[in-house]
Amino acid sequence: MHVHIINPNANKEITEKIRSAAQSVAHDDTCIIARNVAHGPETIECAVDEVLASAGVLDLIRQGEQDHVDAHVIACFGDPALDAARELSSVPVIGIAGAAFQIASLVCHRFAVVTTRKRTVHFAKNLLVRYGHEHQCSGIYASDLAVADCESNPEVSFLQIRKDAIKALSDGAEAIVLGCAGMADWEDRLTRELQVPVIDGVKAAVTLAESLGRLKIGVAKTGQYGLPFPKRFIGRYEHFSA
Amino acid sequence: MHVHIINPNANKEITEKIRSAAQSVAHDDTCIIARNVAHGPETIECAVDEVLASAGVLDLIRQGEQDHVDAHVIACFGDPALDAARELSSVPVIGIAGAAFQIASLVCHRFAVVTTRKRTVHFAKNLLVRYGHEHQCSGIYASDLAVADCESNPEVSFLQIRKDAIKALSDGAEAIVLGCAGMADWEDRLTRELQVPVIDGVKAAVTLAESLGRLKIGVAKTGQYGLPFPKRFIGRYEHFSA
Amino acid sequence: MHVHIINPNANKEITEKIRSAAQSVAHDDTCIIARNVAHGPETIECAVDEVLASAGVLDLIRQGEQDHVDAHVIACFGDPALDAARELSSVPVIGIAGAAFQIASLVCHRFAVVTTRKRTVHFAKNLLVRYGHEHQCSGIYASDLAVADCESNPEVSFLQIRKDAIKALSDGAEAIVLGCAGMADWEDRLTRELQVPVIDGVKAAVTLAESLGRLKIGVAKTGQYGLPFPKRFIGRYEHFSA
Amino acid sequence: MHVHIINPNANKEITEKIRSAAQSVAHDDTCIIARNVAHGPETIECAVDEVLASAGVLDLIRQGEQDHVDAHVIACFGDPALDAARELSSVPVIGIAGAAFQIASLVCHRFAVVTTRKRTVHFAKNLLVRYGHEHQCSGIYASDLAVADCESNPEVSFLQIRKDAIKALSDGAEAIVLGCAGMADWEDRLTRELQVPVIDGVKAAVTLAESLGRLKIGVAKTGQYGLPFPKRFIGRYEHFSA
Amino acid sequence: MHVHIINPNANKEITEKIRSAAQSVAHDDTCIIARNVAHGPETIECAVDEVLASAGVLDLIRQGEQDHVDAHVIACFGDPALDAARELSSVPVIGIAGAAFQIASLVCHRFAVVTTRKRTVHFAKNLLVRYGHEHQCSGIYASDLAVADCESNPEVSFLQIRKDAIKALSDGAEAIVLGCAGMADWEDRLTRELQVPVIDGVKAAVTLAESLGRLKIGVAKTGQYGLPFPKRFIGRYEHFSA
Amino acid sequence: MHVHIINPNANKEITEKIRSAAQSVAHDDTCIIARNVAHGPETIECAVDEVLASAGVLDLIRQGEQDHVDAHVIACFGDPALDAARELSSVPVIGIAGAAFQIASLVCHRFAVVTTRKRTVHFAKNLLVRYGHEHQCSGIYASDLAVADCESNPEVSFLQIRKDAIKALSDGAEAIVLGCAGMADWEDRLTRELQVPVIDGVKAAVTLAESLGRLKIGVAKTGQYGLPFPKRFIGRYEHFSA
Repeated sequence: MHVHIINPNANKEITEKIRSAAQSVAHDDTCIIARNVAHGPETIECAVDEVLASAGVLDLIRQGEQDHVDAHVIACFGDPALDAARELSSVPVIGIAGAAFQIASLVCHRFAVVTTRKRTVHFAKNLLVRYGHEHQCSGIYASDLAVADCESNPEVSFLQIRKDAIKALSDGAEAIVLGCAGMADWEDRLTRELQVPVIDGVKAAVTLAESLGRLKIGVAKTGQYGLPFPKRFIGRYEHFSA
Repeated sequence: MHVHIINPNANKEITEKIRSAAQSVAHDDTCIIARNVAHGPETIECAVDEVLASAGVLDLIRQGEQDHVDAHVIACFGDPALDAARELSSVPVIGIAGAAFQIASLVCHRFAVVTTRKRTVHFAKNLLVRYGHEHQCSGIYASDLAVADCESNPEVSFLQIRKDAIKALSDGAEAIVLGCAGMADWEDRLTRELQVPVIDGVKAAVTLAESLGRLKIGVAKTGQYGLPFPKRFIGRYEHFSA
Repeated sequence: MHVHIINPNANKEITEKIRSAAQSVAHDDTCIIARNVAHGPETIECAVDEVLASAGVLDLIRQGEQDHVDAHVIACFGDPALDAARELSSVPVIGIAGAAFQIASLVCHRFAVVTTRKRTVHFAKNLLVRYGHEHQCSGIYASDLAVADCESNPEVSFLQIRKDAIKALSDGAEAIVLGCAGMADWEDRLTRELQVPVIDGVKAAVTLAESLGRLKIGVAKTGQYGLPFPKRFIGRYEHFSA
Repeated sequence: MHVHIINPNANKEITEKIRSAAQSVAHDDTCIIARNVAHGPETIECAVDEVLASAGVLDLIRQGEQDHVDAHVIACFGDPALDAARELSSVPVIGIAGAAFQIASLVCHRFAVVTTRKRTVHFAKNLLVRYGHEHQCSGIYASDLAVADCESNPEVSFLQIRKDAIKALSDGAEAIVLGCAGMADWEDRLTRELQVPVIDGVKAAVTLAESLGRLKIGVAKTGQYGLPFPKRFIGRYEHFSA
Repeated sequence: MHVHIINPNANKEITEKIRSAAQSVAHDDTCIIARNVAHGPETIECAVDEVLASAGVLDLIRQGEQDHVDAHVIACFGDPALDAARELSSVPVIGIAGAAFQIASLVCHRFAVVTTRKRTVHFAKNLLVRYGHEHQCSGIYASDLAVADCESNPEVSFLQIRKDAIKALSDGAEAIVLGCAGMADWEDRLTRELQVPVIDGVKAAVTLAESLGRLKIGVAKTGQYGLPFPKRFIGRYEHFSA
Repeated sequence: MHVHIINPNANKEITEKIRSAAQSVAHDDTCIIARNVAHGPETIECAVDEVLASAGVLDLIRQGEQDHVDAHVIACFGDPALDAARELSSVPVIGIAGAAFQIASLVCHRFAVVTTRKRTVHFAKNLLVRYGHEHQCSGIYASDLAVADCESNPEVSFLQIRKDAIKALSDGAEAIVLGCAGMADWEDRLTRELQVPVIDGVKAAVTLAESLGRLKIGVAKTGQYGLPFPKRFIGRYEHFSA
C-alpha cells in the first residue's frame, strides 16, 4: 500500500526525519511518500501558523488523491485541517496526535504529553477533548522550546524534553507521548533511557494506516466527511473551484 | 470608534447585507468598515471552505490593524480563524456565532439555531461547546439550503427558515438565533412574524464591540492570544514572514 | 433608555459606588436608576444572606416595572434571584456576574475571579457552571475579606485584592474579573497597575443592557421566564398576591 | 429523635398530608413535628414562588433549632433554601428531592420523575445535576397540573400522574419518583397499580433522617455550611440580625 | 428484618469486624447475617483481586436468597459485582462505597475518601463517577497501606489514616469517608479525635437497608436489574446453570 | 508474532468463528492462538454472565503468559476483566470493543453499534464512556437477539442485525460497529450490502496488536497496570496464590 505523509511544516529537514521514522516501522510492501507543504510556515507553533499551513495540507491531499495513495497521514501534532482533508479524500486520513493517543491508550492507564511551546499546551488539550482521550492524560508538559530548536540544537532539546518526561513520570504518568513531529527520532533513545513506553505519532499513524489497509475498511463519505460542495473559489485558491 | 467587519465569504452581496445590518444598530459615532476576503470560497458550507477562507481573514486582520480599527468582527457563523485573528490583533476580535449566543442567553432560557446546510449543524454544535452555551441551546435546525440560496432565492429561503424556526419553537425554544451571516436582513421580519426574540450575530457582534469600546477594556496579549512567533513563511504566505 | 440597577445589599454606600460606576460607562441618553433593597442583609456573603436579600430584589423589580424601565441589572456578584426576576420582568434582567464573564470571554482566553469571603468561591463556581464559562476560568481567588472591609478599609482591601490578582496572573490568568459589586471603583486603578484587562460586572452589565436596547430585542416570555402563576401569598409577601 | 418537617408551601392541607406520610414510616420513638411557613405562596410552582418561600423556611429552621430537633426536612420537591438552612442549622437538613433520588438509586437502574407544572421540569433537572443523579434519571414527565389541583381535584390529578408514570415506564424507567410533596399520599396506590417501586420524597427523607440518627453522625460546620456571618439585617428580616 | 452482609474478602477477621460494626447501628429487630466468600483473595487491593472475589459474592447472594433475607450489603469499598448481584437478587443490594457517599453528601458539602493502596484510588474515583458523587469529593488520599496491615498492625495503620485525614481536612474536606471495610472500627475514634463527621460504609449501608425496609419499597426487576438469562455454565460455575 | 485470542464465552463454535476472522486479517508471520474459557457461561449477555466469565479470562492470560505470546485479545464486546488482565500480563491486552471504537473513529465522524440483547446496550454505553468515544457514537441499536441465535439461526439473525444497521444509518450513522464477537463473520456481507464501513472488533483488535508489535512499544507496568499484589487466594482460585 501507499501511505502519503503530509508534513504541514514547510521544512524539508523535518520532512526527512518524518520519512525516516515512518520507514522504520512500515512493512516491506508499504511505500512511504513524504512531502511538506509548498506554502506555509517553516514550523507550526501557534494558531496563526496553523491557519497558514492548512490550505497547503489540502493541496497535498489533492496531489495524493491523484497519485491514488491508500491513506494520508497529517504529520504535525495539532492535526491541522484534518476534517477538511477527510472531506477531500477518498481514503483514510490520520492525524499523528490522534494516532499517538490511541496507541498510548492501549499500553497504559495514564499517559503524559511532552511538547514544545507553552502555547501549544492548549492545542493538545483541545485534541484530547476532541478525540475523547482527556481522561487518559495525566498532564501536558511544555518546555517552551521552539520547534526549530529540535533541529538546530538537538541534544539540548532532547535533554529538556527528557527532563519534562521524568517530571511527568514522577507526577504519575505511565507512558510518554511525544507532542511534536520534530521529535520523531527521539523515541528509541527516550524509551531506552526511561524504561517506559514512549509513543511517536508518526510511527503510530503509519501502523494504523497499515491496519486499515489490512482490514480493507473504506471511509465514510455519506455524512460529515462527504465531498465538499462544488463551488467557485477566488484568488489564490481558484484551483479548488469545481 | 471604527468597527472592522470581515466577511470570510468572498462575496460582495453578502458583504453589503452585513454592512447594512451592522449600520442599522451602530451608534452615530461608530464607523463601520465592511470587507470580504480577497481569496477563498464564495460561500462557506463545509470544512474545506472554512480552511480556504481562513488565511484571507488573517490578511484582513492585518489590513484592519494598519487602519487602526478599534475592533474586528468575523462575520461568518463558523467564526473561522478566530483564535489566529486574536493572536494577530491588538484590539478585540468578535465572532458572530459567539456574539449571537451571548445575546440570546441574556433574553431567554433556551434558544434554537436555524441554519443552512445539514453539515454545518456539527460546526454550530462545536461552537456551542467551545463557548459554553451548549446547555442553553434547545436544538440546531438545518434546512439544507445552500448559503447561495439566501441570495438567489430569498423568499423561498426565508419561508424555509421560518418553517424551521416554527418547528424549533414548538419543540421548546424560546428564541431563535440565525445561523448564517447571509440571513442578517431577515431578523426584523422573523421577529414580527413569530413574536419571539430573533438574534442576528452581525448586529449582536457590533453592539458587543461598542460595549467593549465604552468599557475601554483592552485585550489580553500576555497568554494564549499573544502575538504570533516571528518566523519565515513560504510561498503564497511569504508576506506574513517576520 | 432607563437602566434600573438593583443593589441586593441593603447598603447605601455600595449603592452609590455602583451608581457611579454605572454612570461612568453609560451613554448620555441612558438614565441610570440605582436602588438597594429595603429588606435584607447589609452585605451578602453566604447562602443565608442571599436568601434574605432575594425577596427584596423582587420588590424592586416590581417597582422598576411600574417605572417602565428598559432593563434591570442585579448588582451583586451572586446574581441572586435572577430567574425569579426574569419571570416578573417584561424587559431584560442582567446579573453582574454573568455580564462580567461574557465580557471577559471576549478579551482573553482564561480569566480569574478575585473575590472576598472564601465561602463565596463556591457560589462563583456555581455561576460559572450555570452560564457555561467554567472552562474559561483559570481560578477563583478569595482573600477572605468581608464585603464590609471594601467600604471601611478600602486601601488595605485593595492591596489584598491586588495581591490575589497578581497571584492569579502568575498562575496563568490573562484577565481579572472583580467578584464583588463593592469593588466597582477599583477597576481603573487595577488595570493601570497590572496592565491586563480588569472587568467589573456593574459596568459590563450596563453596556450589555445598552446593547440589548440598540438591538431592540425583547425578552422571551413564552417559556421558563413566563410570568409567575397568579396565586395567593401569605404574611409579609401578601402584596405579591394576584 | 425529633424530626422537624418544614413545608415551604404556606398551606395547611399539604402540611397535614406530609405529616401523615412522615408518620407512616417513622419508628415509634421518632417524633414528627410538621409546620408550614408563615410567609410565602400557598403553592410553589415557579422561581418567584421559590424565592418568596425561602425566607420562611429559614424562620422555621431557627424555630426548630430552639426546639432542639435532631434533623430538619424541607418538604418541597425543589429543596428550596437548602444551603442556607444547612448554614443556620446545627443538625442535618435533608431535602425531599435529594432524598427521593438517593432511595431511588438504591432500588433501580433508571428512575423517572413525574411532576406537576411544565416549568418545574427545569428545576427538577437542576437538582438532578446538583446532587449527581442526572445519569440515573430516564426522564422528567410534567402533566402541567397545578399543585393546588392535587388538593382540589385529587382523583383526576392522580389519574393524570398515573398516565405520565405509565408513559415513563414504557420509555424505559424502572421506578417512579413523585415530584411534589402534594403527592405524598399517592405512593401506595401507585405502587399497587403499577407494580414498580414508587418513591415519595417525604417518606424517603424521614427514614434518611432516622439513619443519620442511628449513625450518630453530626454535620460539618467547618466549611461551606458553617454558621452565617453575624451582621445587621434591615426591614422585615431584622430578627436575623446578630 | 434480615440484613445479609457479604464480605468479598475471604477473611474471617474482617468479617467479624464488619459484623460488629453493623450490629452497633442496627435496630433491635434487625438480624445481621455476616459471611465472607468461600473462594477468593484474602484481601482486595487490585483489579485481579476484585475479579477473583466477584463470583464468590454471587454464590453468597444465592445463599441469602434461599435464606429469604430482606437486603444484601456488599462490604468491600469497591462494591464488587454489584450489578450482577442486583440481577440475581429479589431484594435490595447495597454497596458500602455508594452508601458512604450518600450519607456523606447529607452532612457536608465536600468529603474526602481515605484509603489504603495507591492503586485503589482509581477504583474509588470510578465509583464516585458511577454514583454521581464526584463533584462532592474533595480528594482521595491513599496511604499505600496494605489492607492486611489494618488487621496485623492496627495502631500504626490508624495513625497513618489519621494523618491522611488531617491532610484532607487542611485541603478543604469537611468530612471523612473511610475507604475500606477493614477500617469499620476506626470511625468512633477518628470522629472523636478530628471532630468532623467520619463515615464508615458498612454502618451507612446497614441503616440504608433499614430505611428501605421501613419504606417497603421493592426493587426494580423489569429492566437492567432483571433476572439473568437462564443458560448453561461450564466448569466451576456449573451450579449457576438454569 | 503470537496473538492470543481469549474467548470469554465458553463456546467452541464462537471460538472457531473468532479464530477464522482473526486469521483472515493477520499477516503471514502472525500466529493466531484462539481459546475459550474453561469455566463460565456459554454466552455473555448480562452482568452475572460477565462476572462468571471473568476469572476464566485470567486463567487464560496466565496460560498465554507461559506460552510467551506477544499480545492478548479479549474477544467479547464487553471487554470483560480487561483491567485485571492488564495487571497480570507482561504484554499488551486489547479488548475488541475498544479496538472497534478506535478503528471506527478513524474512518467516520459518527458510528453506530448494533448489538444483541437490550440489556447489553448499557454495557456498550459504559465502554464508550470509559474509552472516551461516547461523542462519536450516534446510537446503540439492540435487536434483543440472544447471542446463541447468531449461531443457531444465523440467517434470521443476520437480517435482524442488517435491519438495525439500516435504521442506524437513516438516523445519521456513517459506519457500523458490530457489537458481538459472534457477528465476526458478518462484516464482509454487511459491508457489501450496505456500502458503508462495517467494523468487527476481533479483526480490529488483531491489526492493532500487530501495530503494537511493529512499534515495539511495551506495556506500562509501573502504575495502575502493575503486577497484582502477591497474596493468598482461597478455594477454587488457590492456584492464583503467590
